[in-house]
Amino acid sequence: MLKDIIDSVREKSPLIHNITNYVTANDCANILLACGASPIMADDLEEVEEITAICDGLNINIGTLNCRTVESMLMAGRKANQLGHPVTLDPVGVGASVFRRKTAFHLLEEIQFDVIRGNISEMKTLANGQGTTKGVDVDMADVITEENLMQAVLFAKDFSKKCDAIIAITGGIDIVADSKKAYCIYNGHPMMSSVTGTGCQLSAITTAYITANSKNKLEAVVAAVCSMGMCGEIAYERLSSMDGNSSYRNYIIDAIYHLDGETLQSRANYRIL
Amino acid sequence: MLKDIIDSVREKSPLIHNITNYVTANDCANILLACGASPIMADDLEEVEEITAICDGLNINIGTLNCRTVESMLMAGRKANQLGHPVTLDPVGVGASVFRRKTAFHLLEEIQFDVIRGNISEMKTLANGQGTTKGVDVDMADVITEENLMQAVLFAKDFSKKCDAIIAITGGIDIVADSKKAYCIYNGHPMMSSVTGTGCQLSAITTAYITANSKNKLEAVVAAVCSMGMCGEIAYERLSSMDGNSSYRNYIIDAIYHLDGETLQSRANYRIL
Amino acid sequence: MLKDIIDSVREKSPLIHNITNYVTANDCANILLACGASPIMADDLEEVEEITAICDGLNINIGTLNCRTVESMLMAGRKANQLGHPVTLDPVGVGASVFRRKTAFHLLEEIQFDVIRGNISEMKTLANGQGTTKGVDVDMADVITEENLMQAVLFAKDFSKKCDAIIAITGGIDIVADSKKAYCIYNGHPMMSSVTGTGCQLSAITTAYITANSKNKLEAVVAAVCSMGMCGEIAYERLSSMDGNSSYRNYIIDAIYHLDGETLQSRANYRIL
Repeated sequence: MLKDIIDSVREKSPLIHNITNYVTANDCANILLACGASPIMADDLEEVEEITAICDGLNINIGTLNCRTVESMLMAGRKANQLGHPVTLDPVGVGASVFRRKTAFHLLEEIQFDVIRGNISEMKTLANGQGTTKGVDVDMADVITEENLMQAVLFAKDFSKKCDAIIAITGGIDIVADSKKAYCIYNGHPMMSSVTGTGCQLSAITTAYITANSKNKLEAVVAAVCSMGMCGEIAYERLSSMDGNSSYRNYIIDAIYHLDGETLQSRANYRIL
Repeated sequence: MLKDIIDSVREKSPLIHNITNYVTANDCANILLACGASPIMADDLEEVEEITAICDGLNINIGTLNCRTVESMLMAGRKANQLGHPVTLDPVGVGASVFRRKTAFHLLEEIQFDVIRGNISEMKTLANGQGTTKGVDVDMADVITEENLMQAVLFAKDFSKKCDAIIAITGGIDIVADSKKAYCIYNGHPMMSSVTGTGCQLSAITTAYITANSKNKLEAVVAAVCSMGMCGEIAYERLSSMDGNSSYRNYIIDAIYHLDGETLQSRANYRIL
Repeated sequence: MLKDIIDSVREKSPLIHNITNYVTANDCANILLACGASPIMADDLEEVEEITAICDGLNINIGTLNCRTVESMLMAGRKANQLGHPVTLDPVGVGASVFRRKTAFHLLEEIQFDVIRGNISEMKTLANGQGTTKGVDVDMADVITEENLMQAVLFAKDFSKKCDAIIAITGGIDIVADSKKAYCIYNGHPMMSSVTGTGCQLSAITTAYITANSKNKLEAVVAAVCSMGMCGEIAYERLSSMDGNSSYRNYIIDAIYHLDGETLQSRANYRIL
């Protein structure tokens, strides 16, 4: 039951360690608070292991990556694995540079992730070692539609098997898959792509959801992806004629703040493939 | 009179140098503008002394601390002391790592702070060299209530004497104390803890308030803490049924923008112990 | 026609590489999305050349400058020049430290900028090698009024000739000039100065506007400056009695999101000198 997933986040209030970019760090912190979790951002080599140790889950996001933080990500990730803490990878714009690709592959080699969440272009880059990309956005050639959905589902299952992690590919249609089962999720609104960092925010709350539901991670990721999508819908319904992407950003986080298990359960729109 | 304190901030428009974390830097800048001050953020060794010199006050915040900025904090702090500029310390999450503790103790040794502002767990860590913490949040065991208030007041006065700084401990009940006098402040709203960085924002405006009222610093800190708390109340009253923590964040800063001396005077809710 | 300028941004959706400060990076990303462009923030030496290469335009902003990013700015700028990508410089607070001045002069020496955008104090510092400044704000002695407008226009034209770049000086009256022609723009609202980073945001969208209108750059900068100013007006008209600078920040970005060519054309308020 998706309902139980979110109730568990609010009840346990997991503390999430984020090593993330400076563009969306504030939104990630606020959306973690909105869903009932607690954020801490820390990225210095001197303290990341300790911070990971006092936290319950770890969210690694490679946006605004720099030389100083790569090693921090590796150290924190290894520590989280040692301690059995859930770890999420958000490979922001991984196709945009050799530096991001090398870092992402290095992270995949050294760290066992529980969830990898990105857009389809980022995921193809991770899976195939190369890929197309339009900066941090999805390449048009990659967009998932009903026509190529089955193919994308097989890709997600294969990639999940290969890295032994839950794969969350988000876009117009979202796919959340392990090696055997895939959820195709139809929640969301196109306007979400005009707010910076909705993907980063989703990775942050996904970490909270799996941390508070460690025995039921696949369903927890589904719940997180459905939550974000339906809050995009709820926020869109709330827009006045003068509201644009900045108010929309606030309303999405506001909607996560008010989201309850009943709404999550009843508005979730997915099918299993 | 608290009224005169805020009038003085708006009249003098002090320029505040902030060495602070990247999570809440934007909110700190906007709330400084909201209260009538002017912000500048700068953290590189190459320029911090000069920036401190052209500013009127300095706010040091150890969130997202990194190796590069520790030395910058020390240099800026020493410079501010030399020039007689007010300096505030916000020991964000100081209990969370050895790195933060060592940095905070080093800062306390080398720099004479005018105000130290944090939650009770952070303050106990600073005072006792160790402490409990839940990341950047207060540990439940430390929460100040009417029952242990007198004990917390004595702790604050002692700690103030020890570091010759005004101590501002914020939480459900706030305490602002020097070695002889303590104000217990009841303004505020529990929902403030679901917005990231309300503490950082308070430290930023506290620096502005003491800088514009350097002959009356204790009352200036009381005014800053009351301002933040009552703006949390005013913003809460303004929430619609769909507004959550993200809109609340905006409304708090909006309320600071509109806060006048009369409101500050009449809504301030404190007693002296 | 200003109308065509903005239509072209929405149609081409240029990808803009931003090397910018951590205080306003989120707002810069959201306003780029609002105007129809796409942002990517990246500042590490290891990847800036590649990121610049996959982008269409480059925005360099020296706020929260640090030793690590100076070299990144130089590398990205040279690459953009090689590839013929438009490049904007925002010399935030250049008068505030030797470090910022040295960096700005170094950038001006090595990189051919298409546009330099700043306040009058920053521009005088750039042009004369020294200048007054109040942190990141304009010095009162420099403020452009109808009385000294002609003098400021001549300064802008001269400086444009000297650096072969379009000069955008923003303030109460804005001046956009090349060596021969100057637009004096009257759009805008004084309250914009109580929102952090409206200048940074303007530099970001200016980069998008010139990138999508590379054959008509002077008019593109005029369109960007008029857009920002009139969105400051539109957002101001929308303020409720409780809204302050934080809501205003959101409303400005919202207004950019909704701005169409007709409104831009009809509300633009300038004269040519």
